[in-house]
Amino acid sequence: MGTADKETLSSSPRFSQRRYWSQDQAISYLMQQGIENPDCLSLAAGFVDFETLPVELSHKASADLLANPDEARKYLQYGTTAGSDRLRNQLLEHLARMEETSVEDLGIDRDQLVLTTGSQQLLCILADVLFDPGDICLVAAPTYFVFLGVLAGVGAEVISIEGDENGIKVEALQSELERLKQAGKLPRVKMLYLVSYYENPTGVSIAAERRQPIVDLVEQYSTDHQIVLLEDAAYRELRYDGPELPSLWSCDPSRSQVVLAQTFSKSFAPGFRTGFGVLPKSLVQPVIDRKGNEDFGSSHFNQNLIATILEKDWYSNHVTEVCDNYRRKRDAMLAALEEEIADMQDQVSWFTPHGGLYVWLTVPPEIETGFESELFKYATEVEKVMYVPGQLCYPQADQKNQMRLSFGVLNPDLLREGIARLARSIRHFLK
Amino acid sequence: MGTADKETLSSSPRFSQRRYWSQDQAISYLMQQGIENPDCLSLAAGFVDFETLPVELSHKASADLLANPDEARKYLQYGTTAGSDRLRNQLLEHLARMEETSVEDLGIDRDQLVLTTGSQQLLCILADVLFDPGDICLVAAPTYFVFLGVLAGVGAEVISIEGDENGIKVEALQSELERLKQAGKLPRVKMLYLVSYYENPTGVSIAAERRQPIVDLVEQYSTDHQIVLLEDAAYRELRYDGPELPSLWSCDPSRSQVVLAQTFSKSFAPGFRTGFGVLPKSLVQPVIDRKGNEDFGSSHFNQNLIATILEKDWYSNHVTEVCDNYRRKRDAMLAALEEEIADMQDQVSWFTPHGGLYVWLTVPPEIETGFESELFKYATEVEKVMYVPGQLCYPQADQKNQMRLSFGVLNPDLLREGIARLARSIRHFLK
Repeated sequence: MGTADKETLSSSPRFSQRRYWSQDQAISYLMQQGIENPDCLSLAAGFVDFETLPVELSHKASADLLANPDEARKYLQYGTTAGSDRLRNQLLEHLARMEETSVEDLGIDRDQLVLTTGSQQLLCILADVLFDPGDICLVAAPTYFVFLGVLAGVGAEVISIEGDENGIKVEALQSELERLKQAGKLPRVKMLYLVSYYENPTGVSIAAERRQPIVDLVEQYSTDHQIVLLEDAAYRELRYDGPELPSLWSCDPSRSQVVLAQTFSKSFAPGFRTGFGVLPKSLVQPVIDRKGNEDFGSSHFNQNLIATILEKDWYSNHVTEVCDNYRRKRDAMLAALEEEIADMQDQVSWFTPHGGLYVWLTVPPEIETGFESELFKYATEVEKVMYVPGQLCYPQADQKNQMRLSFGVLNPDLLREGIARLARSIRHFLK
Repeated sequence: MGTADKETLSSSPRFSQRRYWSQDQAISYLMQQGIENPDCLSLAAGFVDFETLPVELSHKASADLLANPDEARKYLQYGTTAGSDRLRNQLLEHLARMEETSVEDLGIDRDQLVLTTGSQQLLCILADVLFDPGDICLVAAPTYFVFLGVLAGVGAEVISIEGDENGIKVEALQSELERLKQAGKLPRVKMLYLVSYYENPTGVSIAAERRQPIVDLVEQYSTDHQIVLLEDAAYRELRYDGPELPSLWSCDPSRSQVVLAQTFSKSFAPGFRTGFGVLPKSLVQPVIDRKGNEDFGSSHFNQNLIATILEKDWYSNHVTEVCDNYRRKRDAMLAALEEEIADMQDQVSWFTPHGGLYVWLTVPPEIETGFESELFKYATEVEKVMYVPGQLCYPQADQKNQMRLSFGVLNPDLLREGIARLARSIRHFLK
């Protein structure tokens, strides 16, 4: 080794194993692509719609919070690690409304609610408190790629379970659990992670009739310890049509199996970074201990701003407006797909989402969609349109001919234009 | 094992090793004591003063942020993982003012600034990206107990270096580094952590003449890799008198050794949870990768609110008011100590802080101060006053006859009353 190499080595810190597990994340590549292609219409960005962001409501709530100086000072002070009691009280009622039951019949204490920096922080904390390197997490295939990064960061082994337009397949889940049992690996299975409503990336929801069987399977195979079912319900409130679905959480009356993770980022405003988790009692202290180390509490001001929005009953009308807007945009994207893909219908397919922000598109297997693919280059460089390559959403890039399209940010006209450009790009590579 | 035990086992998740390392944290005991002793005057709470929390400024800044809907929507949207460019631009100027130099002469790019949820999140992220279990962190004795919890959480070995009223002793640091070198352990030394200004818990600052030698020592012993000097400057702006001190960061013109961590929690408002780090280039990507997993960005709204406060030049006057208020309160506590401890002066001693929120008090070695001690019980149950036991601030509870007193929350009258109660408690146990 030459002197130069030695100097390079000693001028850099020596990092932990975890640092290396956390690098090369899909989200970084994606953001980099966004920066490098500023002239593209982006069907990739995971942002929410700018137009329906609640400027007026935020203004009113913030003015209300700060109107009485004695009250206001409480909100500007540190809160607790678990978060504002005021918001957690409101959340019990909010949850009862979503679950169509009473606060009493929820069967939980306020202490089982923990407020986090978006729901993302809860996902990350749960990974930290549950996974040692080599422990196993079961996920749907495909699944939320940011959580795949979190799992990689703790050295977890990720096993994908096949799904269809009704979500993860119960029999596939069962046979994988049975395989793990036979292999003596159940002690390493810590979690089943599912995005239950209008999944990121597929837009698919787990069908009503699959929900109880999934929860029952998790219980059945929790012989060594409780396998945690993490229900990521980030998009739950963005429902445009289709059936109302019970949460996976509601299928566990013991309240000991399922963590329900939700957020106000999609239904209200991501700028406040306020999410929450409903936890089994056994997880409350571990999550709070870890969060105590991470930040000993998310923004107390923002938590109270959301509490005011709920308390004043300004929230539900806003969510209705948000859903009306996204429904129009979803319809615009689906109509554009029908129209632009008409001549390729036997080769290109997609799911019809009843909520959320995404449409999942599949092209023929011979057409790859990744960042390095000809299609991605042609789309971004010639047609000036960007999407999220589907392979990012599989732990081992299992399938390379899919893409996630978001109708979150662009308006209906630009969505139509974006789909037209994308259709031309795909057509260019079809035989 | 009986059936009941089996049920208990299988109804609980199996946690990671890290979960056990993160439990039993000092802060949890402390908060529990606060809850159990609500009738006590608290000299323990680490909160900031309620009276100087910036209600009016927050109101103005929030109204300003939300006045123009097109602008406002940007602040309500997701930001980037590293944080708002607008605030980071302001921070370059803020840092230049503190360092008494120009933005150009800071010798860093904006990309070396990362915005976090308080400075606590930065401390925790650095621990995650640097420490494997068994790696070594050097700290002052005593030091910030929450960071000791973070280090325990990653399985780090903590080595305390002796200090005095001028901060950590240079010769003690050198001899420990030399000992580690001789033992072949330098490859495991990842970090030296120091609270450089008005330390939590001692109120002590590292003297000007010790600063360059400390930075030089770190460089000298960084033969295997760069040992990171984490300068926790959370209290830097709460200066009431005494010398203006250069940052440790300023003693490293290479900008490759020192991480400078600061926050707006003490000088402005903790409710916004906005802190920042100035990072060597080698640490930027590791920190952002980890933060991407934790939350992919702290509150964008809050970051922009702080940016407006700085941009409008509302900040410095506010900090002056905050310091004037704390100076009065520090003086009240010190005067009360002088008066109440007069008859015990040869047995009870304390440091005089020039800033920050804390006074560090030492009683005779035979009087223990811990949660289980006779003194703590007498103080909380009979005299109704609470403090932070000093042993929490040592990794192995090395010294048991000290306490941290905060003048952060109580007003001068109550501070005097609190000290009177504390003096009676101590006197009760003195021979």
